[in-house]
Amino acid sequence: MTIGILGGGQLGRMLALAGYPLGLRFRVLDTYDAAPAGELADLIVAESFAEREALSRFAAGLALVTYEFENVPVDAARFLADRAPVYPPPAALAASQDRLTEKSFFRQLDIPTPHYAAVASQAALGAALAELGTPAVLKTRRLGYDGKGQRIIRHVSDAPAAWEALQSQDCIAEAFVPFDREVSLLAVRGRTGDTAFYPLVENTHHDGILRRSVAPALATPPALQAQAEDYGQRVLAALDYVGVLAIEFFQQGDRLLANEMAPRVHNSGHWTIEGAETSQFENHLRAVAGLPLGSTAPRGQSVMLNLIGTIPERAALLAVPNAHVHLYAKEPRPGRKLGHVTVRSDTADSARALADSLQARL
Amino acid sequence: MTIGILGGGQLGRMLALAGYPLGLRFRVLDTYDAAPAGELADLIVAESFAEREALSRFAAGLALVTYEFENVPVDAARFLADRAPVYPPPAALAASQDRLTEKSFFRQLDIPTPHYAAVASQAALGAALAELGTPAVLKTRRLGYDGKGQRIIRHVSDAPAAWEALQSQDCIAEAFVPFDREVSLLAVRGRTGDTAFYPLVENTHHDGILRRSVAPALATPPALQAQAEDYGQRVLAALDYVGVLAIEFFQQGDRLLANEMAPRVHNSGHWTIEGAETSQFENHLRAVAGLPLGSTAPRGQSVMLNLIGTIPERAALLAVPNAHVHLYAKEPRPGRKLGHVTVRSDTADSARALADSLQARL
Repeated sequence: MTIGILGGGQLGRMLALAGYPLGLRFRVLDTYDAAPAGELADLIVAESFAEREALSRFAAGLALVTYEFENVPVDAARFLADRAPVYPPPAALAASQDRLTEKSFFRQLDIPTPHYAAVASQAALGAALAELGTPAVLKTRRLGYDGKGQRIIRHVSDAPAAWEALQSQDCIAEAFVPFDREVSLLAVRGRTGDTAFYPLVENTHHDGILRRSVAPALATPPALQAQAEDYGQRVLAALDYVGVLAIEFFQQGDRLLANEMAPRVHNSGHWTIEGAETSQFENHLRAVAGLPLGSTAPRGQSVMLNLIGTIPERAALLAVPNAHVHLYAKEPRPGRKLGHVTVRSDTADSARALADSLQARL
Repeated sequence: MTIGILGGGQLGRMLALAGYPLGLRFRVLDTYDAAPAGELADLIVAESFAEREALSRFAAGLALVTYEFENVPVDAARFLADRAPVYPPPAALAASQDRLTEKSFFRQLDIPTPHYAAVASQAALGAALAELGTPAVLKTRRLGYDGKGQRIIRHVSDAPAAWEALQSQDCIAEAFVPFDREVSLLAVRGRTGDTAFYPLVENTHHDGILRRSVAPALATPPALQAQAEDYGQRVLAALDYVGVLAIEFFQQGDRLLANEMAPRVHNSGHWTIEGAETSQFENHLRAVAGLPLGSTAPRGQSVMLNLIGTIPERAALLAVPNAHVHLYAKEPRPGRKLGHVTVRSDTADSARALADSLQARL
C-alpha cells in the first residue's frame, strides 16, 4: 500500500519513518527538491501544489492521500479526492485554513474561544478594538504559522501600524487572553469512527514559535482532560474526521478556550515518538489506512525541545541521558525548525532535570 | 554523513530507520534488487559481495562502512577498509564466520563453551562422538544460519547420514547441552572504548529459527547478568570492537556457555526498539559514527515474536493492545523471517498476557 503525502517537510519525513515498519510505502509531493522526506521516500517536485500535471502523476496508483500542512489548496485536495481517498477530509482543510472560519466553527460546536471580530478594514479594526479592548491580537485570516502574520496591539494607537504591517489583508482581531498556560490536545479518529486522545500537552511559545512541550502536562485534573476530549470529540465528529487532529487551547483556571486547530500531526505531539505507547505519526497512518488505532497511553514523562535556527553539536545533545535526537535534514536559517530533542524519564522530576541539562546545551 | 551498509535486509532497513532521525544518510549494497532496505535508502545492486567494481562504487564518498550480516567476505571488508573505516573491525568477521575459530576464540578468552571437536572426515566424526558422547550436534564450520547447516546426532548410527546431509564439508561437532534456557547478550562498544550492555534476553528457537524473545529475561540474578557482561567485555576488548555485538549462551543453572556470536545487530535485540531507552539499531549507529552511546535501560517488559513464512492480517496484529508491528517488505516463503511484533508493557504479567493474545493470532 503506497500512501501519498502532500508536503515533504519534517512531518512527512516522520510519517514515513513511522510507516515503513507497518509495511506502508510513501510518495511525497513538494515544491522543494531537497524536501526532508525526499531522503527516504519517492519525491515528486511540483511547481506549486496546484499544478494539475504534478498532482496527477502524484496520485497515480496511490491507495490514499494525506497531508502534512493545512495550507494545501482545497481545490487540489478535491482534485486528488476524485483519484484516491483523501484523509483527513478536505472539509477539515476548509475549516482550519481561515482563522475566522475556524473560530466560528468552534463556536458552532459550543467550544469556547477568545472573543474575536472580523477585520476587513482599518475602520473595522478600530471598531473591533472598541469591543474587545486592548491588548488584542491582530492576525491574518490565512497563511499564518509559527507566529507569522500576527501583531500584538497593546494600545489603540498601535492599530494603524499593525494593520499596515499585515498589508491590509483580511484579518481577525482577538481579545488577548491572560492565560495560565497553553495546552494542546492530540486526537485521532479511525475510518470506522473509533477515537483516541493523548494526554494534554503543555506548550511554551516564544516569538510565536513552539519551543518546549511537557507531556503529559503537569497538574492536569481529570476534569480538564475530559473537557478537552469532549471538545475534541465534537470537532472530530463534525468533520467526519480521519487521522490525527491537534487543537491548541488557552487554559484559564479550569476553563479551556480553543485557539486554533491543525488537521494533521503536530509539533506538540513529537514527544509521542518515545513518550507514548504509539506515536502520533503511527496513529495517523493507522487511522488513514483503516487499521486499528494504537494505545495513546504515555510512557513516563517527556519534555520536548525544538531546535530552532541552529543545530548544536550532535554529540553534545546525545550525551544527555535519555535524549532522543530528531534532525530534519534542513539547512539552518533563523527561526527555522531544524529538529527536536525529547527527553523521557519515569518521573517528572528526573525528566525536568534532564531537560534543563539539555536546554543548557542549546 | 553517509553510512554504507553491506547487506540490505531487514537489519539494514531497521538501521536506516533508526539513523535518519540522527541526521545520518544511508547507502546499501546487496545482490538482490528488491532488498528490504532499498525502499528507504540508496541501493547498489552487485553481482556478489566480492565484486570489486560494485564495492568501489559503493564506497565512494562514504563516511564509514558497516554490515548487517557476518558472512561478508573478509576480503571485501578489507578492500573497503582501504577506502573508508569499516566498523565492526573486519577481524570480528574472521572470528565469527567459522564456528570452529569462534569456539576456540571464546576458549582463548576463558569463556566456557560446550565441548566440541573439529570434524574434517567421517572418521573424525566417529572419533569426536566417542569423545563428546551423544546426543551431539554436527554443524558446518561456515555459512550456517537460522538452523541451516546443522544436524542433531542422537545415536552414533546417525553419524553417516548427518555427515552426508551436510555434504562432507568441514564441520564442528558439539556436545549437546541440556540447557535450562537460551539467553543472549547485546553489547555495544563505541569508538572511544565506552561500552554498554542490554539486559539478558531469553530466546526460544524452533527448527533452529528464533521464534520468541522475552526481555529482560525473567528471573535473572544480578550475578548472571554480571557474568554475561564480563564475557561480553572480554570479546569486545579482544577485537577492539566498535558497534553492537550479540553473544548467544546456553544457561545451565548459574553457568553460561557461549554458543555463538554475531558481529552485528541481532534478531534477539529487536525488542529494544520499543522496550529499551535506546534501540540496538540506534546504539550501533551511535557507536560506529563516534557518537555517545545511549541508555540501554529497559522500559518495562517486552516480548518479541517473529513472523515466519507468512504474515497474518495486519489489522489483527495491530488490534492487540501494545503490539508494535515491524514488517520487512519481503516476499513470503516458508521459514523466512518476514517481520516481527513486540508487545511491551509495564509488568511481566501483562506483557505475557498480551504476547499470548498475539501468539493466538499467528
